[in-house]
Amino acid sequence: MKIPTKLYLDETQIPRQWLNIRAFMKTRPAPLLNPGTLRPVTLEELNGIFCEELSKQELDGVTPYIDIPEPVLEYYKMFRPSPLVRAYSLEKALGTPAKIYYKFEGNNTSGSHKLNSAAPQAYYAKAQGMTKLSTETGAGQWGTALAMACAYFGIDLTVFMVKVSSEQKPYRKAIIETYGADLIPSPSDKTGVGRALLEEFPDTGGSLGCAISEAVEFAVSTEKCRYVLGSVLNQVLLHQSVVGLELKTAMDIIGEEPDVIIGCAGGGSNLGGLVCAYMSGRLRGRNNIRFIAVEPASCPSFTRGRFAYDFCDTGKITPLAKMYTLGHGFIPGANHAGGLRYHGMSPILSQLYSDGYLEARAVEQTKVFEAASLFARHETVLPAPESAHAVRVAIDEALACKESGESKTIVFGLTGTGYFDMRAYQSYNSGQMADFIPDDGELQRSLAGLPSVD
Amino acid sequence: MKIPTKLYLDETQIPRQWLNIRAFMKTRPAPLLNPGTLRPVTLEELNGIFCEELSKQELDGVTPYIDIPEPVLEYYKMFRPSPLVRAYSLEKALGTPAKIYYKFEGNNTSGSHKLNSAAPQAYYAKAQGMTKLSTETGAGQWGTALAMACAYFGIDLTVFMVKVSSEQKPYRKAIIETYGADLIPSPSDKTGVGRALLEEFPDTGGSLGCAISEAVEFAVSTEKCRYVLGSVLNQVLLHQSVVGLELKTAMDIIGEEPDVIIGCAGGGSNLGGLVCAYMSGRLRGRNNIRFIAVEPASCPSFTRGRFAYDFCDTGKITPLAKMYTLGHGFIPGANHAGGLRYHGMSPILSQLYSDGYLEARAVEQTKVFEAASLFARHETVLPAPESAHAVRVAIDEALACKESGESKTIVFGLTGTGYFDMRAYQSYNSGQMADFIPDDGELQRSLAGLPSVD
Repeated sequence: MKIPTKLYLDETQIPRQWLNIRAFMKTRPAPLLNPGTLRPVTLEELNGIFCEELSKQELDGVTPYIDIPEPVLEYYKMFRPSPLVRAYSLEKALGTPAKIYYKFEGNNTSGSHKLNSAAPQAYYAKAQGMTKLSTETGAGQWGTALAMACAYFGIDLTVFMVKVSSEQKPYRKAIIETYGADLIPSPSDKTGVGRALLEEFPDTGGSLGCAISEAVEFAVSTEKCRYVLGSVLNQVLLHQSVVGLELKTAMDIIGEEPDVIIGCAGGGSNLGGLVCAYMSGRLRGRNNIRFIAVEPASCPSFTRGRFAYDFCDTGKITPLAKMYTLGHGFIPGANHAGGLRYHGMSPILSQLYSDGYLEARAVEQTKVFEAASLFARHETVLPAPESAHAVRVAIDEALACKESGESKTIVFGLTGTGYFDMRAYQSYNSGQMADFIPDDGELQRSLAGLPSVD
Repeated sequence: MKIPTKLYLDETQIPRQWLNIRAFMKTRPAPLLNPGTLRPVTLEELNGIFCEELSKQELDGVTPYIDIPEPVLEYYKMFRPSPLVRAYSLEKALGTPAKIYYKFEGNNTSGSHKLNSAAPQAYYAKAQGMTKLSTETGAGQWGTALAMACAYFGIDLTVFMVKVSSEQKPYRKAIIETYGADLIPSPSDKTGVGRALLEEFPDTGGSLGCAISEAVEFAVSTEKCRYVLGSVLNQVLLHQSVVGLELKTAMDIIGEEPDVIIGCAGGGSNLGGLVCAYMSGRLRGRNNIRFIAVEPASCPSFTRGRFAYDFCDTGKITPLAKMYTLGHGFIPGANHAGGLRYHGMSPILSQLYSDGYLEARAVEQTKVFEAASLFARHETVLPAPESAHAVRVAIDEALACKESGESKTIVFGLTGTGYFDMRAYQSYNSGQMADFIPDDGELQRSLAGLPSVD
């Protein structure tokens, strides 16, 4: 068949079950630990922070497929399935024999894949009788997505937004408020964690780790309120599996199998979802696909971090997760990819990386925006800075094919659009963008703060 | 069949020919006149401003279908077909027995339907050996669309942007520049027209009419440069016919016929495209569909203007068009729907309105944003202020059905997204948005400046 530029599945082809990649792993990710007892957290402990259904999903490492509730499916239909696009124009511009595909998750108002997990999280909270949710947001995509889902399912929301991102993207506040949520720049004076951090580092631009601490503290001290998180957690990767399941369905329809799948990685929500279907095959020896995580050189959890137990937040109030981490005290330079400014990484992806199923590459933001601009001009879509990390490596892989003459099938995740990132593009267009790379001493100091766990 | 929430046609169902509605009209729109001789403009005269192929299309009132060039079709495939969406969630929220559908043109980086005409205009210019284009933009959607198309087809671009819009939307400049175009706020000191206007009204926020004058003056005084326009013209409505043709194909697939089709109208590009297929049927007596143009109360060309020959621009350097106009000197209040701030209206739509085929309604912007917020919360998509005019009237029609108990099929055009209009939403969210309605004296003074044509 002639492969179309854009392939949209039928809405009946939206998955009706999420794929739980943990059930396919020989070495399961290590359990979350209670930082006080250093014992695995129990369902009961988690239920104080998360909704019950989400706590169950968080701890369920064995059920391979989990039903998507009908109201969530109805919501998905307003923005899914997302298209699989053949980047014919980019291929031509590069002069590569490679075939480049991207799964585009940006065709919704949140501008990213985040809505896939926001919808079930808001739904489960409402179903359990909660009246309020709290969360953090980095680039603002998760905050927007959750505000959208909360407006639809009818539940209040308070969003702690990483301060540097809220300053870089003033209109994120407006859109989050248009959907009815409250937005608070983090660190803030609304929580003990925020106040303590502001006292120590009054000029800090904040970090995802700190915003998480504030949102958790807010949730546990507010009645009928639960905390929700847009990445890192097992439950989030579970919800994001719709991306990878649709990807495989579409690739099967056009009769292709990827040689390499590339995704950006901050906390891992996008990459975990994108690769899940093919990774479950790889884990069963059914393919030999390469999977590449792309992270910013300014926040290189995989490529320069340590695989160890660490707090998920700066304020040390969350459970401990075994993951690739730069240390919970690590505060990255002011990179424009706010969604990738996280010190840790999904425990699932961390285990897969440790076991050799996943590669990782760190890239500098000036090179990332160069790729984004080239992509936009040829493929029309303006990528989010986060997504542009995957664009960079997809282009590099395609250029390597040009060198070698190989016609590989390259697939990457275009997680979102850059419409709220114009200040970043302005900075790049004017030649004033800088790269931020932590030095070894800085990393060593940060890693020295890891908790001791036997 | 169960009607899906979103219906995407296959890319083979993208129209391969544009529909020329003029060929179906009993009374054709009156010809453009040369303002010096008051005779119909000739192909030769138009060729000094537009590319030859576009001049031909402008004057061709008889060919019912015109082939879409293959490279334009290839470009269309990167963002077309656009989805037809059933607004199940909005219907439920309104409690209406009406069925509401919208044709959504916002799933591309320009954020609107404008890319449908930008692509052929950039293509034809390049094919004729031009090296540069000039244009104007109001809300910035047309400027973005044309910048995208020019980047792809490889031709330079200078954009004159209505000053009030450029101030309301600073990031439009950034995105237009990311695609490689120059952006100049209008009125500017780059042209004679701009300098004259600035002298008379130093504080003016500008208007589409003035920006057009500047862009035309720039084009005719620059080598290998042509002027392109994103609305009003016959050629633009021709290109936008892909919207209406896809709409009819999709409605036929689900076995529905609209009772009413609603679109916002500034210069008419969206509405003309949206209605074309069903209007061509109506003109042949094959249906009895109602077509409603929605315009801002601040710029009410149809509902309070006069059907007369007028200049298309403020500076009186364009040909005269017979259209509903508020007078070429009319400068609307600072309404947030920059794309609807135009004194005139497509001659095609003007003739159809005059002949009773089209209704018109003027709405105030506070009511428009109220509708937009409701729509966003239930249907996920954040509408552009322009598109939200159609949302307002679609909701009003659905509520009328609730009163009467009728189960009508309402279709509207959701032309674009409001991601670059967050300042407008901020204004609405904070309760500070005002309505601007011109008084009769102001309109009379403006209409007194119409040129005399026998």
